[in-house]
Amino acid sequence: MPEIVSQTGRLRELLQTPRAAGASIGFVPTMGALHAGHARLLEVARRQNQFLAASIFVNPLQFDRPEDLDTYPRTWEQDLRLCRDCGVDLIFAPTPELLYPRQQLTFVESPSLAAHLCGRFRPGHFRGVATVVLKLLNLVQPNRAYFGRKDAQQLAIIRRMALDLDLPVEIVPVPTVREPDGLALSSRNLRLTPPQRVLAPLLYRSLRAAAEAIDAGETSVPVIRQRALAVLSPCPAESVEYFEIVDPETLVPLDRVAAPVLIAAALWLGATRLIDNLSWPATSD
Amino acid sequence: MPEIVSQTGRLRELLQTPRAAGASIGFVPTMGALHAGHARLLEVARRQNQFLAASIFVNPLQFDRPEDLDTYPRTWEQDLRLCRDCGVDLIFAPTPELLYPRQQLTFVESPSLAAHLCGRFRPGHFRGVATVVLKLLNLVQPNRAYFGRKDAQQLAIIRRMALDLDLPVEIVPVPTVREPDGLALSSRNLRLTPPQRVLAPLLYRSLRAAAEAIDAGETSVPVIRQRALAVLSPCPAESVEYFEIVDPETLVPLDRVAAPVLIAAALWLGATRLIDNLSWPATSD
Repeated sequence: MPEIVSQTGRLRELLQTPRAAGASIGFVPTMGALHAGHARLLEVARRQNQFLAASIFVNPLQFDRPEDLDTYPRTWEQDLRLCRDCGVDLIFAPTPELLYPRQQLTFVESPSLAAHLCGRFRPGHFRGVATVVLKLLNLVQPNRAYFGRKDAQQLAIIRRMALDLDLPVEIVPVPTVREPDGLALSSRNLRLTPPQRVLAPLLYRSLRAAAEAIDAGETSVPVIRQRALAVLSPCPAESVEYFEIVDPETLVPLDRVAAPVLIAAALWLGATRLIDNLSWPATSD
Repeated sequence: MPEIVSQTGRLRELLQTPRAAGASIGFVPTMGALHAGHARLLEVARRQNQFLAASIFVNPLQFDRPEDLDTYPRTWEQDLRLCRDCGVDLIFAPTPELLYPRQQLTFVESPSLAAHLCGRFRPGHFRGVATVVLKLLNLVQPNRAYFGRKDAQQLAIIRRMALDLDLPVEIVPVPTVREPDGLALSSRNLRLTPPQRVLAPLLYRSLRAAAEAIDAGETSVPVIRQRALAVLSPCPAESVEYFEIVDPETLVPLDRVAAPVLIAAALWLGATRLIDNLSWPATSD
């Protein structure tokens, strides 16, 4: 069974043993509600490191809407089993009071990266994400930390943070895990009604349609976008929060495809918000 | 002679040796133009650590006025001698291009701490300070880092950053070094004309007057402030940028003294801006 720690001091203490032994430390930060996408992160991290740490912490700082924080799924027993099955050595699971013992006055900000895609609709969200990830990285001090490609903007912001702040850690991106029909795994998928579940795979299909248009030589983003949005036409009007083709590093929306791009979209089905993305050309990992 | 490094990769490489040997690493970040105040930082750090690293880097990110960056004093040969005499083992002296090889998109912000004292008059300054200090701490990964009490707001912001972001480093404050007449050492003192130099010690005397008023039992900040400003009356009108009595942790200005406070002021003499501060009650270090 993985060791479970909630105190930051005890966490540092426990990590001294593998570190002193020269073991490489892999780290997978999560908000719990673990599914096969997280299992993939843990499996990749397990293979690449001698010691595997995970965190389970629903971070209040990144919730732009308090009701979202209250209703965020918590599946502790199940998470624990998944961590055990994936060979996790240590789980850091603090309470908010233990991770934020005083008023947080210091934040990590990436204003230009947070201005696009999801960040446009979720003020303060990526500030909360970057700040908690930096705290966790400073506590665990891993050699490698693992993030899913599904949260493309989060991955871009954290990769850039690691470069810009000279963090002594390798950020490893892990491919999105999908249902057979293409729907990206997410704990939110469970909230979909049966008719919404039928529509949900259209999100991935719309991204594929954009990638195929680019494969076929189309470079005009308005044209590519139109083809992709046609795929989403069975969804209710106003479902599409955004559908963008952006620079993969700066996340700036493009008018024309002339180099690798990130195709990213967010779709509302009822009260459930789904996000997904594709890199073009496809990444090898 | 200290080893001099400008490349971040080489810096990390050179620090592996003392780290692997279990030596404690002390770090003193500076902008060069070193004087006896910096020497004090280096001496304290030298005593407390087996390996002593310093950095000399005029950080463009923290200059709110470009002309200030251009005219900032650079005294490389003299700095090198002082580092040698203080027993520095390694000097990190990157160019701006080496420390910022790409557009900086990630920043450390302490909006509430930067809203007071100097920060009120220097937009973006403390964002630049906190960001470069975090970069340097991540590159050097010292056990202890040393900051002068003269820049009280900088020290408060960096101490809070270390706590809020769980940095694995001890931030050590070092007392201000003063001329016999009380004037706090600063590279800017050299720019004072002889008549300005005569007025300059009044800044410290005004802080002392405030501390003495509190010692005598006065708790009303307007009253204390009035006594302190009377000391500064020989200075030209509008010389005083601010004279504040604030909470030492949050830097929020106070109306009444009921617990330890920070007394801080900034004074313009011609084109030269002097800052100074006192803790009340006096700190032991």
